[in-house]
Amino acid sequence: AVSDSDKEDDGEIREGKSIYMVSDGTGWTAEHSVSAALGQFDHCLVDHGCSVSTHLFSGVDDIERLIEIVRQAAKEDAMLVYTIAEPSMAGAARKACQLWGVPCTDVLGPITEAIASHLGVSPSGLPRGAGGRNFLSEDYFQRIEAIEFTIKQDDGALPQNLRKADIVLTGVSRTGKTPLSIYLAQKGYKVANVPIVMGVELPKTLFEIDPDKVFALTIDPVVLQSIRKSRAKTLGIAEHEMHNYSQMGYVKKDLERASKIFTQNPSWPVIEVTSKAIEETAAIILRIYHDRKQKRSLPSISKRY
Amino acid sequence: AVSDSDKEDDGEIREGKSIYMVSDGTGWTAEHSVSAALGQFDHCLVDHGCSVSTHLFSGVDDIERLIEIVRQAAKEDAMLVYTIAEPSMAGAARKACQLWGVPCTDVLGPITEAIASHLGVSPSGLPRGAGGRNFLSEDYFQRIEAIEFTIKQDDGALPQNLRKADIVLTGVSRTGKTPLSIYLAQKGYKVANVPIVMGVELPKTLFEIDPDKVFALTIDPVVLQSIRKSRAKTLGIAEHEMHNYSQMGYVKKDLERASKIFTQNPSWPVIEVTSKAIEETAAIILRIYHDRKQKRSLPSISKRY
Ligand SMILES: Nc1ncnc2c1ncn2[C@@H]1O[C@H](COP(=O)(O)O)[C@@H](O)[C@H]1O
Ligand SMILES: Nc1ncnc2c1ncn2[C@@H]1O[C@H](COP(=O)(O)O)[C@@H](O)[C@H]1O
Ligand SMILES: [Mg+2]
Ligand SMILES: [Mg+2]
Repeated sequence: AVSDSDKEDDGEIREGKSIYMVSDGTGWTAEHSVSAALGQFDHCLVDHGCSVSTHLFSGVDDIERLIEIVRQAAKEDAMLVYTIAEPSMAGAARKACQLWGVPCTDVLGPITEAIASHLGVSPSGLPRGAGGRNFLSEDYFQRIEAIEFTIKQDDGALPQNLRKADIVLTGVSRTGKTPLSIYLAQKGYKVANVPIVMGVELPKTLFEIDPDKVFALTIDPVVLQSIRKSRAKTLGIAEHEMHNYSQMGYVKKDLERASKIFTQNPSWPVIEVTSKAIEETAAIILRIYHDRKQKRSLPSISKRY
Repeated sequence: AVSDSDKEDDGEIREGKSIYMVSDGTGWTAEHSVSAALGQFDHCLVDHGCSVSTHLFSGVDDIERLIEIVRQAAKEDAMLVYTIAEPSMAGAARKACQLWGVPCTDVLGPITEAIASHLGVSPSGLPRGAGGRNFLSEDYFQRIEAIEFTIKQDDGALPQNLRKADIVLTGVSRTGKTPLSIYLAQKGYKVANVPIVMGVELPKTLFEIDPDKVFALTIDPVVLQSIRKSRAKTLGIAEHEMHNYSQMGYVKKDLERASKIFTQNPSWPVIEVTSKAIEETAAIILRIYHDRKQKRSLPSISKRY
């Protein structure tokens, strides 16, 4: 979906409605929120009944640029979504929007106010990066270590290290083990993934480690076949070279063998990944992971700040 | 910062204030928003003047569980932040909060309403995963391919593939090339990183590819030294084995050589990463990357939905 905008003045209808996003920081919060909110309009986005283009302006820290962006939003009949920490800048955004009739939403304002009154402390009003924060926190190093561990462990490499992992994923080829591992690593978990490949024995260590940290992935055979087919195309594998990789008989046998292994290890949760986005599978895995650690009636994923 | 909550009934003051986050989806939107909003309270979080613990409840799709969570929030004097697509569920959350006096903020409600009136379309009211969306979109495959490419390319591997990358990062050891590469890969960019190591020649391909896609990273020597020291500790490298890796003389020479290479390649933007979070450096790189592609007066990162 990453594409350059080359919207022309007469292209309004062809391109659909615009959403401008402005942040004095990275813009990722506005982007994340808009993308989740757009999920509520999937029914008309899919058939292009209401196609939308978003435009992210990050690092907006002076009023002139801010005003220029709002003016452009007005010209394009766009709406504006913003996250701006400095009260006078935020006020300027609101006023400019009002002046030029641009619909305008402050993403974090309400949460920030609610937190302020909950804590009894005023927000700093300083944008991200303005403070002299120490980025070299333990948390920061932990995340980097998790990412480096996870990369090294990918695709069954270094099975002797499985016990050092927080989470171990297993499943047949193309169940999304790699992107899922990386997603979890970004959240600070050391992840190893072990592929289940026909004719290859699983590493003994997989059955020796704490079974509470192993998660099994499974998928619908028809969907798996279509993923494997497009994978083979990407890799430029010729039909006859594919060792049946994406043939239905092979796909089914592959999944049956996996399912047998999963049955023999009943404490591994089996997660159905068909039609789930990576972040959805990650949420399910982390929910189970933390539930098991807490054993409380209302388990949650908890953090301290 | 991932830690299990083991809050006891008498531990209220010790643990600080609680923020409950509830979602019918993954909870990542609420978590991201709360974490950004908490940035506004760094001044009192740092000295633990107002320590905060967050508790994420994801996949909350029945009213009983929702009510149970609000009741627990009331007991703990917590505030609630929620993202719930189904109007009757969202209404129930609001009512339960009112009944038990829990301060309560809807993260996406205002954006969703603004988008609805901008597009002239009603939100579906269906939580994530409820629709029959096709996850096997081109976008999805592109992101997975980007992640797999980036992992294989890490740490200077396969220099013959640099031309296939969208973005190439270069810098000395411990400037954050790997986590930054992975962060960008998650956003769909194929990233390669090329380490600058004393005594090792840089791959010729680095100077043959489009210089517009190369980004140089630099860092303050004192900060770099402290990162390298803690790195060496993590790796368990003994003082005498470290080949001067974290000695100030070496650190400075390393950075000087890098800086000379950067001067010889003036079109590579030199990004100062000292005291920047990975996502901040990523935002700067992507801003420059898209600006160069667009050459417009108000460049943005644009997407179509
Ligand atoms: N650590 C932080 N300290 C202060 N403000 C922050 C922090 N993180 C994010 N913000 C603010 O939260 C909003 C969203 O940030 P971003 O996601 O970087 O666009 C912006 O107004 C940022 O300035
Ligand atoms: N693709 C989507 N379709 C419908 N609703 C979504 C989508 N993505 C996120 N949401 C909703 O947006 C809110 C935040 O999602 P999440 O970040 O998964 O907690 C939840 O209420 C989700 O149900
Ligand atoms: Mg893989
Ligand atoms: Mg590296």
